[in-house]
Amino acid sequence: MFESAELGREVDKEEFEKRVPALRARILRAQQALAGTGLRLVIVVGGVEGSGKTELARRFLEWMDARGLRVESFADRSDEEEERPCYWRYWRVLPPAGHGAVLVSSWYTPAIVGRVMGESSSGELDQALDRAIAFETMLVREGTVLVKLWLHLSKKAQRRRFKELEADPATAWRVTKRDWKYAKRYGRFRKVCERALAKTGTAQAPWTVVDAEDRRWRDLSAGEAVAAALEAGLERAKAKPPKGVPDRSKPPVPNVLSRLDMSKDADGDYEDKLEKRQRRVALLFRELLRQKRSLICAFEGVDAAGKGGAIRRLLAATDVRDARVMSVAAPTDEERAHPYLWRFWRQLPRVGNATIYDRSWYGRVLVERVEGFCSRDDWKRAYEEIGAFEEELTEAGVIVCKFWLQISAAEQLRRFKERVKTPFKQYKITEEDWRNRRKWDAYQAAAVEMIERTSSPDAPWILIPAERKKYARLKVLEAVADRLEEELG
Amino acid sequence: MFESAELGREVDKEEFEKRVPALRARILRAQQALAGTGLRLVIVVGGVEGSGKTELARRFLEWMDARGLRVESFADRSDEEEERPCYWRYWRVLPPAGHGAVLVSSWYTPAIVGRVMGESSSGELDQALDRAIAFETMLVREGTVLVKLWLHLSKKAQRRRFKELEADPATAWRVTKRDWKYAKRYGRFRKVCERALAKTGTAQAPWTVVDAEDRRWRDLSAGEAVAAALEAGLERAKAKPPKGVPDRSKPPVPNVLSRLDMSKDADGDYEDKLEKRQRRVALLFRELLRQKRSLICAFEGVDAAGKGGAIRRLLAATDVRDARVMSVAAPTDEERAHPYLWRFWRQLPRVGNATIYDRSWYGRVLVERVEGFCSRDDWKRAYEEIGAFEEELTEAGVIVCKFWLQISAAEQLRRFKERVKTPFKQYKITEEDWRNRRKWDAYQAAAVEMIERTSSPDAPWILIPAERKKYARLKVLEAVADRLEEELG
Repeated sequence: MFESAELGREVDKEEFEKRVPALRARILRAQQALAGTGLRLVIVVGGVEGSGKTELARRFLEWMDARGLRVESFADRSDEEEERPCYWRYWRVLPPAGHGAVLVSSWYTPAIVGRVMGESSSGELDQALDRAIAFETMLVREGTVLVKLWLHLSKKAQRRRFKELEADPATAWRVTKRDWKYAKRYGRFRKVCERALAKTGTAQAPWTVVDAEDRRWRDLSAGEAVAAALEAGLERAKAKPPKGVPDRSKPPVPNVLSRLDMSKDADGDYEDKLEKRQRRVALLFRELLRQKRSLICAFEGVDAAGKGGAIRRLLAATDVRDARVMSVAAPTDEERAHPYLWRFWRQLPRVGNATIYDRSWYGRVLVERVEGFCSRDDWKRAYEEIGAFEEELTEAGVIVCKFWLQISAAEQLRRFKERVKTPFKQYKITEEDWRNRRKWDAYQAAAVEMIERTSSPDAPWILIPAERKKYARLKVLEAVADRLEEELG
Repeated sequence: MFESAELGREVDKEEFEKRVPALRARILRAQQALAGTGLRLVIVVGGVEGSGKTELARRFLEWMDARGLRVESFADRSDEEEERPCYWRYWRVLPPAGHGAVLVSSWYTPAIVGRVMGESSSGELDQALDRAIAFETMLVREGTVLVKLWLHLSKKAQRRRFKELEADPATAWRVTKRDWKYAKRYGRFRKVCERALAKTGTAQAPWTVVDAEDRRWRDLSAGEAVAAALEAGLERAKAKPPKGVPDRSKPPVPNVLSRLDMSKDADGDYEDKLEKRQRRVALLFRELLRQKRSLICAFEGVDAAGKGGAIRRLLAATDVRDARVMSVAAPTDEERAHPYLWRFWRQLPRVGNATIYDRSWYGRVLVERVEGFCSRDDWKRAYEEIGAFEEELTEAGVIVCKFWLQISAAEQLRRFKERVKTPFKQYKITEEDWRNRRKWDAYQAAAVEMIERTSSPDAPWILIPAERKKYARLKVLEAVADRLEEELG
């Protein structure tokens, strides 16, 4: 794979200066067109130490419109990053639609370095690469022009480059002890990188391996790869994306929801039970902090299913300072300018904390599906994307609880009427609630499919018969406590 | 000040339950109306340890529409927070327009605790309080309903509360060693708090001192204070805010800009000088990281003054991974939903890093003033707000460089024409540039006033005659190097 990047190709100064203006005009034209589309540009610059990844990033800033183009690099993780899943730091710097980012080092760096240094097994490397593929696939499908550049140097060329940098006081600091340490393992690095590149060079996100020995050749080749990717991306954008159409599926009968025993009610002294369960959750919350874990609860259910009430009782069991509720309404324009999961990544709790989502990322396969806010392809692929998202959460030690609160259509009607009548409940009922009610079956069908496709051992759906509010609230508290106890031992 | 909060007032359960529904309905009505205005709600809950600040926050979540209401608290600063000015953590959690936040502890906590523990002088306390006033004044002027609640307990009541909490295993953890340590200094705390409250109880952000001994009394009084503040805020919002009108001032002659020697040009070998200065800046950047400082450069100047070119040469002197350019265009809707300085706070560099602003917060007193995007009052008060902002930056060790690049109207015309002709420069010229050009005098007048009112010893304006691009670029590099050297010793 790297042989063709060791042919020692060069460009002399004259030719370089002749070719640059046309290339720049081409890139700038494409970049400007990009700003008008819903596409973002992400350039991943990976490669051998000493190959000039940072120099190349600087070149991009020089050649392109630096407004709306950011260079990001990933050194040691900050404590805020340490407390979240690995990809959080990449989601953080994802540019909005119309903008671009040059990533010097990326999700490949820890995967490759870990394997070379013997800190991870070959199986773990493959897992990390699978995750990279899933992330990149999602990026591309969510409107990203993704350019992956790998700057290559032969072993000899790398040594030469290090010595050259060390000879100049202005650049000597750039060669660290770690660089030399890694350079000694050049052979092993090469092997691991070769495997990583082969596996992750997918159709939608191929690698461009660049011979980095001659700086001018390197920059021109990289620039041309960017120009070509931008142009291809714009071409693709011209093809109109499939429109969303409302989905009016009917749920199979019987189904996981129709089989729920809706007659269940709280027995005994409700207030007493509530307090006991809240105390149990409260104590487990202390343990959550002690074990440096965090908690995410997602609440879904039709309007008036009792999500808010259940959440309030749960919140009452926490030190409110450690828990926050995120109510998921229409996204802001910044959120719309990012992949749909971005707004949830943005709100992930730190260790010892909890985020409670009143409606969640499942909106994609519920309201967006039923109302046709996204295309059929979009919500179909979301099951997998959501699965990957939750896997990242649980692997990072986040405890995930997902609740579906089920009520009957008749009970919903009764609650709507009650809301209209009660002064301090009126704010909860809108015209939209009545409209959604008319699509009852479609929502049930979407919920059933969602539950079946996204329940996993680490992130199971917990189905709550919520026809009786008190029963549902107690049940939610019990389920959270059980999950916490199970996870915290 | 606290005497009237030690009268031992109580509300019995029956009365409490009678009064709550009406209060809730009142708050909810106001909260809902708030969502429709450009106002945000910020409730600061301060007070004695053990007075139940967190309990009260939970009560607000129960009584109000929890969607769009967040509880925030401020424990030890994270490393990302440590690396930025003190108020960064408060800016981070500021709710957007239409939303609310309950802040359990706030900017008052470190100020008061520091003074009580003898870590700061009385002068330093006053400085901290002045900063709090400036921050709150800005918040209110930028559309915030600010409610400041102080929960008071007498010394005896505090001891009683601690013992009560300790007696119950579910709440015992809430009383820490630190609480008892602070409790021993009750008298001193009381004195410092009294001073802090007296000084910061301003007309636009008064304190409500709440007797916190009886929990029901506490919650009802606090709830009523919130309801009243919301209603008063909504009333104020009805009064139409003054509209912005374009400002067509003429600059005084001569002025700081007209006096610049515009004939200055680079002499000698430009490329050689450029490289030498870039090397000088590059070495100083290493020192910046070593000393854990950070750098902010703001570039202002009329269209085509050469901001982009100067920035690119400066960037070339940095390790691009440590520097980012923020191009300031129209704000996003999330940015518009926050005070105008929020978008700049969000981009502050970490230690060792630099943020280079291509246009900056000065837009408020330049384009927004000239075009009438904000009212006269708004831009008039901005001089002071910007001064406070930059003071916070420099006090936190951020090195601030502000550049005004000055060109003549004739030179601007020449550059516009050149841009139209050159393929890779066309993206830089828009219809708006031509429109702005017609308001030349107004922009000069705004610039002159801005320079005069916002130059300070720690954040001086550096005026660059930019008629000759090469001279300007060299001069900018030299000035950055000089500032860095001066600050880094």
